[in-house]
Amino acid sequence: MGNAAIDVLGIGNAIVDVIAHADEDFLTRHGMSKGAMMLVDEAQSDLIYSGMGPGIESSGGSAANTIAGVASFGGGTAFIGKVRDDELGKIFAHDLRALGVQFDTPAATDGPSTARCLILVTEDAQRTMNTYLGACVELKPDDIDEALVAAAEITYLEGYLFDPPLAKEAFRKAATIARNAGRKVALTLSDSFCVERYKEEFRALIADHVDIVFANEAEARALYDTDDVEAAAKELARHAGIAAVTRSAAGSMLLRGEELVRIPAAPVEEVVDTTGAGDLYAAGVLFGLSRGRPLAECGRLGSVAAAEIISHVGARPMVSLKELANGVSASAAA
Amino acid sequence: MGNAAIDVLGIGNAIVDVIAHADEDFLTRHGMSKGAMMLVDEAQSDLIYSGMGPGIESSGGSAANTIAGVASFGGGTAFIGKVRDDELGKIFAHDLRALGVQFDTPAATDGPSTARCLILVTEDAQRTMNTYLGACVELKPDDIDEALVAAAEITYLEGYLFDPPLAKEAFRKAATIARNAGRKVALTLSDSFCVERYKEEFRALIADHVDIVFANEAEARALYDTDDVEAAAKELARHAGIAAVTRSAAGSMLLRGEELVRIPAAPVEEVVDTTGAGDLYAAGVLFGLSRGRPLAECGRLGSVAAAEIISHVGARPMVSLKELANGVSASAAA
Repeated sequence: MGNAAIDVLGIGNAIVDVIAHADEDFLTRHGMSKGAMMLVDEAQSDLIYSGMGPGIESSGGSAANTIAGVASFGGGTAFIGKVRDDELGKIFAHDLRALGVQFDTPAATDGPSTARCLILVTEDAQRTMNTYLGACVELKPDDIDEALVAAAEITYLEGYLFDPPLAKEAFRKAATIARNAGRKVALTLSDSFCVERYKEEFRALIADHVDIVFANEAEARALYDTDDVEAAAKELARHAGIAAVTRSAAGSMLLRGEELVRIPAAPVEEVVDTTGAGDLYAAGVLFGLSRGRPLAECGRLGSVAAAEIISHVGARPMVSLKELANGVSASAAA
Repeated sequence: MGNAAIDVLGIGNAIVDVIAHADEDFLTRHGMSKGAMMLVDEAQSDLIYSGMGPGIESSGGSAANTIAGVASFGGGTAFIGKVRDDELGKIFAHDLRALGVQFDTPAATDGPSTARCLILVTEDAQRTMNTYLGACVELKPDDIDEALVAAAEITYLEGYLFDPPLAKEAFRKAATIARNAGRKVALTLSDSFCVERYKEEFRALIADHVDIVFANEAEARALYDTDDVEAAAKELARHAGIAAVTRSAAGSMLLRGEELVRIPAAPVEEVVDTTGAGDLYAAGVLFGLSRGRPLAECGRLGSVAAAEIISHVGARPMVSLKELANGVSASAAA
């Protein structure tokens, strides 16, 4: 581990979420695909917002949520991502730094505003996301701090970074630095539509540059054009080394080479909002891996974090995951 | 009722809340009085924010929360208050309009940013508030739409409006218009420290211009310098006509002339965050009064709304209060 004491460095889109309840009709009227992430421009974002119910705002962004989770577990963390020097940008930066996350990417001083994601939560607790990338399109290779990447045990990248063109270059630069420094590279496929957009590139990347890959069932199947999720999971593990495939209420599979562990989902009293479930599962697994924990324990930490996040509105933990994980461990041992 | 179909018009500080968990030590270190609202300047606000944990943002403001509640009950509503033309100002306006609240006060185009209230929620679910008034100091008598006030069944004013000097003048103008139009004026005392700041003015106002007054125990006692909350409540009712005094878990008292109704608190599974409890209690009572419901029913609506708001983080309802009130009514009858 480097002297910077960074267990996990996340690189991703820096986004503030605007979360509101909506009915299925609203999704249909706006041509949204339930459960998916759709990219929208500023005018579309404004149009959707003007039709949405009252919301709450919470810092978001897939990799940023994961990093917040790792920090909440007590891990050493850093984040690279681009906000504007506006009110939402300050909120995003505050919410990471308040958790002890090192976040030094300079905010853009002109151009589009800080990115926002309009999240509609339907009665089934499913979330449908509409992202205006805003200042995220300004993230460029120069924003990748070489020393930081080289010092981080694991560099975690979100597939969504392929959407802003310069960010994709930044992504590749970071992956190369990490690999050259003998560090691990982790990737989440992000979303099945995102996989469809970049399928060939993702396949090549996983084969050549990635050590740990996260996917849900739909993403894993989309990547390898198969209906067989176990086959897809094994293919991911064969190329990356470690693969984590999440299956919602059915839990998850963690694979390392020939090893396969099935992890049950942690019990949740009431599922309120599934936003961030995958992000926080990744947080638990990455924290566990960075500390050399056995696969089954990594999976348990992932399940605990995912269960916490879906029990309330918003994609950032509301309690200390470190305490939560220890409490669950203690009661499981009792 | 006027042709504008406004049951309740609220006039108050237009604020976005930033809500985070904190421990008691944090309050002590920053010289905060638990449960109270403290006014801070921009530098103090920035200092507190930089020490706070990660937050969520939600539209707030005492009277604005009440108006959101009345709208959620299905009442016709309007709001007058001052934001800046910035991101938080847009969020504040959106969250009212999305509920059908008429909100036409022009945003300030220069000067301080939209007001924010840094809210620390301690483990006992109590909230402690630090308000930077920002653009609220720009609310002036010219912002009071005479026709709107004259058309509203009830004009509801928050005591906090006495803090920004021009807003106090706007407050008096609105109360005078409403009275001259034969409408009702309602007032909340807001906070016991606020009562201490404006005790004489509040007493005179209640005696001369107010028909309905809301207070919690501490505020009622502070206003009349007494330890006897029942005596204070009766004094309020004697001057105003109708008085509502809230007593947290012990419920509330509603008084109209000689009539006194005791209302139990509605049951809550887990008290998560008490922010907005008084505001939403007022929403239920005002909605009931505007529809001519009996006092006991007005109180029940207040208790239902308060119970909803303390069961989650944030001071705006997360479900339809209309449906909730009907549901509770149905199950109570079963």
